[in-house]
Amino acid sequence: MLLHLSTWTEIEAYLKQSQGIILPIGSTEQHGPTGLIGTDAICAEAIAKGVSEATLALVAPTINVGMALHHTAFPGSISLKPSTLIQVIKDYLTCLTRAGFTKFFFINGHGGNIATLKAAFSESYAHLSDLQIPNSEAVQCRVANWFMCRSVYQLAKELYGDQEGSHATPSEVALTQYVYPEAIKQAPLSETVASGHKIYGAADFRRRYPDGRMGSNPALATPQHGKQFYELAVKELSGSYLEFMAAE
Amino acid sequence: MLLHLSTWTEIEAYLKQSQGIILPIGSTEQHGPTGLIGTDAICAEAIAKGVSEATLALVAPTINVGMALHHTAFPGSISLKPSTLIQVIKDYLTCLTRAGFTKFFFINGHGGNIATLKAAFSESYAHLSDLQIPNSEAVQCRVANWFMCRSVYQLAKELYGDQEGSHATPSEVALTQYVYPEAIKQAPLSETVASGHKIYGAADFRRRYPDGRMGSNPALATPQHGKQFYELAVKELSGSYLEFMAAE
Amino acid sequence: MLLHLSTWTEIEAYLKQSQGIILPIGSTEQHGPTGLIGTDAICAEAIAKGVSEATLALVAPTINVGMALHHTAFPGSISLKPSTLIQVIKDYLTCLTRAGFTKFFFINGHGGNIATLKAAFSESYAHLSDLQIPNSEAVQCRVANWFMCRSVYQLAKELYGDQEGSHATPSEVALTQYVYPEAIKQAPLSETVASGHKIYGAADFRRRYPDGRMGSNPALATPQHGKQFYELAVKELSGSYLEFMAAE
Amino acid sequence: MLLHLSTWTEIEAYLKQSQGIILPIGSTEQHGPTGLIGTDAICAEAIAKGVSEATLALVAPTINVGMALHHTAFPGSISLKPSTLIQVIKDYLTCLTRAGFTKFFFINGHGGNIATLKAAFSESYAHLSDLQIPNSEAVQCRVANWFMCRSVYQLAKELYGDQEGSHATPSEVALTQYVYPEAIKQAPLSETVASGHKIYGAADFRRRYPDGRMGSNPALATPQHGKQFYELAVKELSGSYLEFMAAE
Amino acid sequence: MLLHLSTWTEIEAYLKQSQGIILPIGSTEQHGPTGLIGTDAICAEAIAKGVSEATLALVAPTINVGMALHHTAFPGSISLKPSTLIQVIKDYLTCLTRAGFTKFFFINGHGGNIATLKAAFSESYAHLSDLQIPNSEAVQCRVANWFMCRSVYQLAKELYGDQEGSHATPSEVALTQYVYPEAIKQAPLSETVASGHKIYGAADFRRRYPDGRMGSNPALATPQHGKQFYELAVKELSGSYLEFMAAE
Amino acid sequence: MLLHLSTWTEIEAYLKQSQGIILPIGSTEQHGPTGLIGTDAICAEAIAKGVSEATLALVAPTINVGMALHHTAFPGSISLKPSTLIQVIKDYLTCLTRAGFTKFFFINGHGGNIATLKAAFSESYAHLSDLQIPNSEAVQCRVANWFMCRSVYQLAKELYGDQEGSHATPSEVALTQYVYPEAIKQAPLSETVASGHKIYGAADFRRRYPDGRMGSNPALATPQHGKQFYELAVKELSGSYLEFMAAE
Repeated sequence: MLLHLSTWTEIEAYLKQSQGIILPIGSTEQHGPTGLIGTDAICAEAIAKGVSEATLALVAPTINVGMALHHTAFPGSISLKPSTLIQVIKDYLTCLTRAGFTKFFFINGHGGNIATLKAAFSESYAHLSDLQIPNSEAVQCRVANWFMCRSVYQLAKELYGDQEGSHATPSEVALTQYVYPEAIKQAPLSETVASGHKIYGAADFRRRYPDGRMGSNPALATPQHGKQFYELAVKELSGSYLEFMAAE
Repeated sequence: MLLHLSTWTEIEAYLKQSQGIILPIGSTEQHGPTGLIGTDAICAEAIAKGVSEATLALVAPTINVGMALHHTAFPGSISLKPSTLIQVIKDYLTCLTRAGFTKFFFINGHGGNIATLKAAFSESYAHLSDLQIPNSEAVQCRVANWFMCRSVYQLAKELYGDQEGSHATPSEVALTQYVYPEAIKQAPLSETVASGHKIYGAADFRRRYPDGRMGSNPALATPQHGKQFYELAVKELSGSYLEFMAAE
Repeated sequence: MLLHLSTWTEIEAYLKQSQGIILPIGSTEQHGPTGLIGTDAICAEAIAKGVSEATLALVAPTINVGMALHHTAFPGSISLKPSTLIQVIKDYLTCLTRAGFTKFFFINGHGGNIATLKAAFSESYAHLSDLQIPNSEAVQCRVANWFMCRSVYQLAKELYGDQEGSHATPSEVALTQYVYPEAIKQAPLSETVASGHKIYGAADFRRRYPDGRMGSNPALATPQHGKQFYELAVKELSGSYLEFMAAE
Repeated sequence: MLLHLSTWTEIEAYLKQSQGIILPIGSTEQHGPTGLIGTDAICAEAIAKGVSEATLALVAPTINVGMALHHTAFPGSISLKPSTLIQVIKDYLTCLTRAGFTKFFFINGHGGNIATLKAAFSESYAHLSDLQIPNSEAVQCRVANWFMCRSVYQLAKELYGDQEGSHATPSEVALTQYVYPEAIKQAPLSETVASGHKIYGAADFRRRYPDGRMGSNPALATPQHGKQFYELAVKELSGSYLEFMAAE
Repeated sequence: MLLHLSTWTEIEAYLKQSQGIILPIGSTEQHGPTGLIGTDAICAEAIAKGVSEATLALVAPTINVGMALHHTAFPGSISLKPSTLIQVIKDYLTCLTRAGFTKFFFINGHGGNIATLKAAFSESYAHLSDLQIPNSEAVQCRVANWFMCRSVYQLAKELYGDQEGSHATPSEVALTQYVYPEAIKQAPLSETVASGHKIYGAADFRRRYPDGRMGSNPALATPQHGKQFYELAVKELSGSYLEFMAAE
Repeated sequence: MLLHLSTWTEIEAYLKQSQGIILPIGSTEQHGPTGLIGTDAICAEAIAKGVSEATLALVAPTINVGMALHHTAFPGSISLKPSTLIQVIKDYLTCLTRAGFTKFFFINGHGGNIATLKAAFSESYAHLSDLQIPNSEAVQCRVANWFMCRSVYQLAKELYGDQEGSHATPSEVALTQYVYPEAIKQAPLSETVASGHKIYGAADFRRRYPDGRMGSNPALATPQHGKQFYELAVKELSGSYLEFMAAE
């Protein structure tokens, strides 16, 4: 059930059954010479829809621009500042908590979002409590990173070994190939690829990782792999969602 | 050409041809008993893609939550505060201007966004200038409201007369029916519908417009109408975009 | 009745009769070679006082610096950023709503303020509701632009035709001449005047409109015209104010 | 010379002679049963104009709402939060410094503004330097409190002794009577008046100072006294202004 | 009793006896060629502990970075912006007021903090009231500047006369020598020292005060003097604290 | 070398040798019935000083209040909001980068700070780049959590097994006992202790963890253990610091 394809009366009815909602969050950032700029949002959104089908959970519209400041030296990347993203999340949660939601399950496609999301959750709990919204004490947020699912991780290791890398990975590229087979890109990839550098500012990042990849070989990706990743992630995160909903 | 389905090298190439980008912006808000909560984002996104096909313009990911504070007494509505949305737009434009974009064409699906967008543009021009980004003097933003296209307006008047109303209108509902025929909703609509009240706070809005509609009869909408609206809006806004790009 | 010339006990008494207040808002910005920098504030303030005399409404002190970022490449212009102005309005309305006011009628002298004012109203409704101020649900804001009064517009068309233009207009200059006859300025005005350009950043604005006028010929202005504009605006806005107060 | 009654070309010419500007700042707050709510703004504005006549300095429009949170339990008081006022001052100084001004002389009518103004100056110096405005290193701000002028203080002591008090004082009331003789108020004043309490929050203030006065007997004020205060303040602050301008 | 060396259950017990807390606040800024960068924090902390021993008051951890923007052209200085410091104080007071504290006694070691602290107190009173915290009406803040104690001032005058100066003073240096005898610094000091200049931006400050001192001769300081200053300040501020706690 | 016990000329000299600085960051939060409220700051500060002795690195004053919103239902806890802490870190790094520092090594004593610190680093990299500070491209931040040192973790497992828990742990309590033997607390600890709950808002946290401990038995702590932890952490983090400084 997608929030965007529902009416408010359907949401009113849904809230009598469940106070849970899934919020897919991605990023708009370079993913190497062959990865889509929307990779993180595409993956999060597709998996969120899959989890929704499996669990009947409601899915909010995808937050498709996240915290990707370190990628912004590559054209096409768009990032919110962390303090902006915190404000955005706070606004979302204020509206949704007032409506009756209390369980917020973020399906996240981008490692760079995690820290800011956690900061945003802390800020939001306090803010909702300050507002004295009746159900604010019951509010719980969870960030579920599909790429850190144990099953996903294992398959990536199996299929790609060290060539999985940590950005513009074949696993995420594969998943986008499965979702958008019409947008599979070809481009020459240098044989050696930078890896192992820490992440600091945007100019520094581009200097260290000149084509945007971090130790990955996305040429290994196939749509069939993508399907596998999709199914594993949906299955594992469906379990996580149900567990989250069941938890006190 | 969709930013999310492009690589950064494709964007680098695009920027040599054009410094223009289309940013669809909608809202996540109640649209009456039969209108989709995502109506404004769905319309803006669909039309933006159409304009892109006609003009080869690049399309950014849809800003699917906008300024809809007055709708937030209806469950499922999510809104940014105006000051948050200004910050979001500023962050977007900072990234994109640094990358070389200078012409920002917002295709907007929600009247409630207009004031805040305009405020955000003013704030952003000054901010980009403060940052001394080389091309900041050339930055231009434009908001294009598909529902205010002359051709769209005329068709709506023809088809629906006064029953077009001003929120949860048959024209926008029709357009979503064309885009998502699988999500056409049926629900009883009272014969009389509130209209003519000014918009103030959220609780006041719900009191005045108890089912969320503002003077509209969305039961008149059909997917065929939606196709017509879509085509008119794409045609008219493609012209506007090209004119915007050509203007000094 | 002017807030600044009243005591708090007089305001306490006033509040038993009325919860309405007029807030004049102008700008501090260039108005061409002969227009006063304070034009927008002067006009708004004078008309607000006139409306007050006609309606017994209370008038707050004039907000004499508004949103004029696009004029700031001309010396003497002062502008708040939109996000600052939103904060200012929010602070005003919080104080006044706590005191018992609920009807805020902004008499505005500057087109550039409108978008930010509307954004500020939305933000304030939500903020006052968050604060749980007892009467916050009843709060209503209205922006009344004197220069968009139908009667004013018609007279301007009659007197000046196309030479009214859209900034540093003869109508607003005339009104300041009526209010401050001692400050009527003479300066050579080029026969041709720029017009029709969109408004973007400050440097761009000055490049397009080198003497600050936008399509106007303020040399046509006379104090007698000013008196006429004043009287028309006062009459029309007095009606608007009373209607606003009467509205549920 | 008043900014609001000048044209931008006059300001351009002025800047070739002087980089100084006077900014009157007052407050909109209760001043006891007989004092005007605009007292602090009225005094600051009148004196600023007098200083301008004596020194040919330019005067900006009066900042008529300042930091008066502790007075907001009395109806009619309006206050900015300190963080808002800091932002406002920063916006003013950014515009004016970009235009070429470097010497900002605030004539202040309200003790409650002083701390926030000083904080705002510090924040602004750093901000202007961050913006790399060429003349930012030369920027200097000064707050001149007319009521703390030695000559004013002495006259108040002579005329009123201990009954001068510290808020709604006869000296400031007298000055407003001189400026607005048509707005002299009569109201019964209790013989005893609260005094000596520290200032904390708004509710606490009203509890401690039930009629708004702080140890003062404004019934002693006369317009003739006001004239004397006006002349003393103008003379002393004209000297201060010239000294400020002459200082390296 | 030090908050950092207490358990929460001890604080719970303390709150049954007292709602007072001492917050030492200093700065991290240059203090001339021989003064410690931590001078202001060291002094405030030491005196706060002494007052605590004398009065059994609880002492919060030292706020060791304050408002010192004007010193930041000297390496090693760290400053918060005033608006940041206001936010910090607001966060502190919100937590502590919710816990039951209502009397906040800031022992301050840096003149540059005073304005921002006072602004922060005003902002916090309003914020706590907005949050409707039950005891918010009783909240009182006081800033006690040890260096402005009458007894301290007199001793400084006696010992150093005009060579006390106003920054990097022998009195504050002496106090740090008493607290940290192992960190007594020797460095050549020019015989003449700049003095009498107003304080504006950081670059200007360093130009006017090239070695960081303001009219002072810290070479006169001795640890024995420091002990005297310490004892005088502790005695006087203990009295102030008790008076503050006793006041209604 | 401690910043607070240095002069600015010493820092000027230090910067010729090194651009690195250690910033200890802790928290002010409940640590169960026997743990000190300052535990996290005490540990971070002590270890930072030890690392400084081993590596000659400069140590900034301890940030002793961090992000501990979830602990604020226990009296004595003080927390910054994440957005405030981000601002604080940004202010620190701006001052220090302008002075010439580029390598910021945060020794952190509190898990709850990590997310916000990482968000603050991202925000700061972009901010410093926006300010065009010459060395901003070289700025690097690292957070080093002493309690996650491998050697520390192993010793804790050896000594305490599962009773280490995750808050108010015997290892951190031991370290504070070593640093402040005069502040070793005794209090009855229930035999069973809550554990395994996720962390959400403050009221929820206190309900789940009624005495503040999270699965830990701090009664096992001894000062001798504390000495061991101290030495292991200093050794391991000294290595980390040197590695950080050596890294390109």
